[in-house]
Amino acid sequence: MSRFFAGKLASLKEYTPGEQPKDQVYIKLNTNESPYPPSNGVIEAVNSKEVELLRLYPDPDCTKLKEKIASLYGVEKENVFVSNGSDDILNFAFLAFGEGGAAFADITYGFYKVFAALHGVKSQIMPLESDFSIDPKKYYGLNKFIAIANPNAPTGLFIDPSEIEKVAVNNPDSVVLVDEAYVDFGGKSCIPLTKKLDNLLVVATYSKSRSLAGARLGYAIGNKELISDLEKIKFSTNPYSINRLTLLAGEAAIDDDNYYKANCQRIIEAREYAKSELEKLGFYVTDSKANFLFARSPDISGKELYLKLREKGILVRHFDDEKITDFNRITVGTMEEMQTLVKAVKEILG
Amino acid sequence: MSRFFAGKLASLKEYTPGEQPKDQVYIKLNTNESPYPPSNGVIEAVNSKEVELLRLYPDPDCTKLKEKIASLYGVEKENVFVSNGSDDILNFAFLAFGEGGAAFADITYGFYKVFAALHGVKSQIMPLESDFSIDPKKYYGLNKFIAIANPNAPTGLFIDPSEIEKVAVNNPDSVVLVDEAYVDFGGKSCIPLTKKLDNLLVVATYSKSRSLAGARLGYAIGNKELISDLEKIKFSTNPYSINRLTLLAGEAAIDDDNYYKANCQRIIEAREYAKSELEKLGFYVTDSKANFLFARSPDISGKELYLKLREKGILVRHFDDEKITDFNRITVGTMEEMQTLVKAVKEILG
Repeated sequence: MSRFFAGKLASLKEYTPGEQPKDQVYIKLNTNESPYPPSNGVIEAVNSKEVELLRLYPDPDCTKLKEKIASLYGVEKENVFVSNGSDDILNFAFLAFGEGGAAFADITYGFYKVFAALHGVKSQIMPLESDFSIDPKKYYGLNKFIAIANPNAPTGLFIDPSEIEKVAVNNPDSVVLVDEAYVDFGGKSCIPLTKKLDNLLVVATYSKSRSLAGARLGYAIGNKELISDLEKIKFSTNPYSINRLTLLAGEAAIDDDNYYKANCQRIIEAREYAKSELEKLGFYVTDSKANFLFARSPDISGKELYLKLREKGILVRHFDDEKITDFNRITVGTMEEMQTLVKAVKEILG
Repeated sequence: MSRFFAGKLASLKEYTPGEQPKDQVYIKLNTNESPYPPSNGVIEAVNSKEVELLRLYPDPDCTKLKEKIASLYGVEKENVFVSNGSDDILNFAFLAFGEGGAAFADITYGFYKVFAALHGVKSQIMPLESDFSIDPKKYYGLNKFIAIANPNAPTGLFIDPSEIEKVAVNNPDSVVLVDEAYVDFGGKSCIPLTKKLDNLLVVATYSKSRSLAGARLGYAIGNKELISDLEKIKFSTNPYSINRLTLLAGEAAIDDDNYYKANCQRIIEAREYAKSELEKLGFYVTDSKANFLFARSPDISGKELYLKLREKGILVRHFDDEKITDFNRITVGTMEEMQTLVKAVKEILG
């Protein structure tokens, strides 16, 4: 830290992304990327003619992209916000709506507590139940900004939208943000609820089901006034935050929605295969509706399994948080990658 | 504004980017883009094989890009920060270093006051001299975060680095940020000074001289501790803020530095041609060292000239600020575009 750094941020602890080691080629099951490439439409849209046009600024309103997303979900353009990855949107939401404090689960996406600390938002940490589930009733009447990842990470556990609806109804004067980064792998979206609940904001990403983690694109859907608050913050920080090529990729991906839906189906099949194989090996595996498994072996510590898989060229994500240190979060890749994983685990367990 | 929006931000007034009308094709001389496309190396680097890899997250450390930039400027990788456009960096700098207040010119990049308001940074607005120049001596001993655009925008006026050095030396306990977005068009960079001044931070962009406004890439160079403060904020907001294709474009552009230097030379020639022609028509034109002219006619108001040029399919930037409302900021395009501009101005003036 320099001697000039803001005193109010002195104790800020930044987020730690999953490791990206460059020493060898790994089977990457640690950052929840898709094993499938973007659709042909995306690859055609991002062509050399468009690269030449990079001399020009992108459209700061992102009109075409918003219209495509709106049309896919049956909402209006004014209900759609887009930005440089869903992290960007979560950050804006904590700033815009967290002034009266925020509440989120003890075990959830690790970035929420960083955003809260950055903006001086007082956080109420909500313990999970003993089976790692969220009890939505405990969120009633909190009267502060609530962020719920659904499915939750890294547990993969999913809450039905009807339960989220009750959380929003029972916190009528606060924004309830549902982070649906992983909803396309067997969950169900709360987007339809945004039409009747003016305090529900759904955040989504192109990084997982749409194979565009490297393009950086996230969106949020909600009441027009919530969206206009997010726009105000975007235009007060970085109005051109989405580059031209990502706008094109994002538009083309919506056109190819069926390709991505089919990929999600393949990922679900590979997930259920891997879950059942790990269970045969004695693992406790949560009922994940995401593109990852959250698994604990009775025979080997989470850290040791992570390290031994790493030696075998397979990266999974291990968290040091003591409440989940026995677990690993394993991204679901192709069926072949899952077979390789299961084989490696068998070898490690002997 | 929604009823949930943070009270402390209620009066925030966002930045207004230059207009991007879609009703017809314009000669765009309003947002200081380069008239030249990115180099061949950039166009080759952003290829369909790389688009396929968009399924993977980018390198959050941006190692290769930082190394290239460091090598170009003769500094270490740890002296280089990169992010999603220089606006992103300016925003971080106001948050990181503005806690004790900020000072910047009355007429300068309009976003500084927005960043200050967003972060609750108290601003001391420094009036320009009557010829629109900045008197560096007036910045001595301010003892707060200082932001100076050099060349300044929209005036184009340039201060020699030796004068900036004295500002930094005379504010030893505050960060002095030099925004060099336009330095490659005849100015001189303060980057060498960052080796001896631990409070000097130079911010630069790929949007102007490197023809990549649409890719969103900015960088900052300074003391390692200043850079690490900016990294802390990046990793507390959006660690993957630069997408994969922009990283590649940014790396390739450094390799093709000579191409961009030659373009800058052509833009300087077109600027000096247009300046001299406008002066012949009676305009007062500042001595711009940027890729734009700042010009006032004794015969027509700034607004009227802007509107009449717009009718003729030429967009320039007009600001409503009364201190400069007689002026227009005219981006320097190709020589041919400048000839078209001069011809149009002659027609308008009759």
